[in-house]
Amino acid sequence: MDTEYIKSQLVPHPDFPKKGIVFLDMFPLLRNPVAFETLITNFVHHLTAVTIAKSPNRKIDVVVGLDARGFLFGPIIALRLGAAFVPVRKQGKLPGKCHSASYEKEYGVDSFEMQADAIEPGQSVVVVDDLIATGGSAKAAGELVAKSGGKILEYLFIIELTFLKAAEKLDAPLYSIVQVDD
Amino acid sequence: MDTEYIKSQLVPHPDFPKKGIVFLDMFPLLRNPVAFETLITNFVHHLTAVTIAKSPNRKIDVVVGLDARGFLFGPIIALRLGAAFVPVRKQGKLPGKCHSASYEKEYGVDSFEMQADAIEPGQSVVVVDDLIATGGSAKAAGELVAKSGGKILEYLFIIELTFLKAAEKLDAPLYSIVQVDD
Repeated sequence: MDTEYIKSQLVPHPDFPKKGIVFLDMFPLLRNPVAFETLITNFVHHLTAVTIAKSPNRKIDVVVGLDARGFLFGPIIALRLGAAFVPVRKQGKLPGKCHSASYEKEYGVDSFEMQADAIEPGQSVVVVDDLIATGGSAKAAGELVAKSGGKILEYLFIIELTFLKAAEKLDAPLYSIVQVDD
Repeated sequence: MDTEYIKSQLVPHPDFPKKGIVFLDMFPLLRNPVAFETLITNFVHHLTAVTIAKSPNRKIDVVVGLDARGFLFGPIIALRLGAAFVPVRKQGKLPGKCHSASYEKEYGVDSFEMQADAIEPGQSVVVVDDLIATGGSAKAAGELVAKSGGKILEYLFIIELTFLKAAEKLDAPLYSIVQVDD
């Protein structure tokens, strides 16, 4: 199965970035073009076979990717679908008029921005990132899409920490390739 | 010409991120799949028609991309060439054993890292980023590749600020699509 192959390419690093957390490193996967293509094809197959059926116009208009690891595969998916790629970045990184949404971090609150003219009202949008943990940053990205009038079809991740139950916080279905349940 | 078309998709923002600087925003280009494909094809055509001829093994083994805007198109180029994609990130962002190189910023010094096992000795490498200004970050990326024993064939950028003469600092040829000369 492609899922098992993808999972086998993610390298665990215990106690990174801090004690008690096992970080699954996706960068070794990006060194292996066959594994990387398997990852991209898994997402594109899911989007073309399942997600696009739920789109009002039978297509995905925009792929939103979160800075920085969402930048590694979001643009490839967008290009293959003929969709726009739109970034979500930390406050102050994007020029021009931006929408803003805050999210809770371990210590305090941080802010995400999206360019205000990047998504047109009514467009069908998917949001991608490498990992969903508590879902705070995905939820903030969803708020930015809503402020532009876009409609989120789905949130997609390589890795989902299912025990943190982020799916319950989101306003659209969640798709993940690898689930970590403890 | 594709170069003129690519340039026309970069949106200037005067006084961003600070007064006196005109920031050329690449994100509008990523919203337009035809323009984005034109950008990728320009790089891939250059690499396949010119750069690979200089490689000892007639291929490019590794595409190194700088966090964060080099992540937007470096992985696509790597995938099309059947090459590995390897990131350069700020200190503390990458797990495992890393090489480190410092570079000067406007105020003080910062550090880049690359995973120590990411490049094998003798591999042919190209380095990509969106913009080359003074060349400090590209030079640091080059040092990281050298520490791994990789051989840099070329540095590639969307935009080059030619008046800052970064090419003189680099240990391999520089290719840029759009040149800004003042």
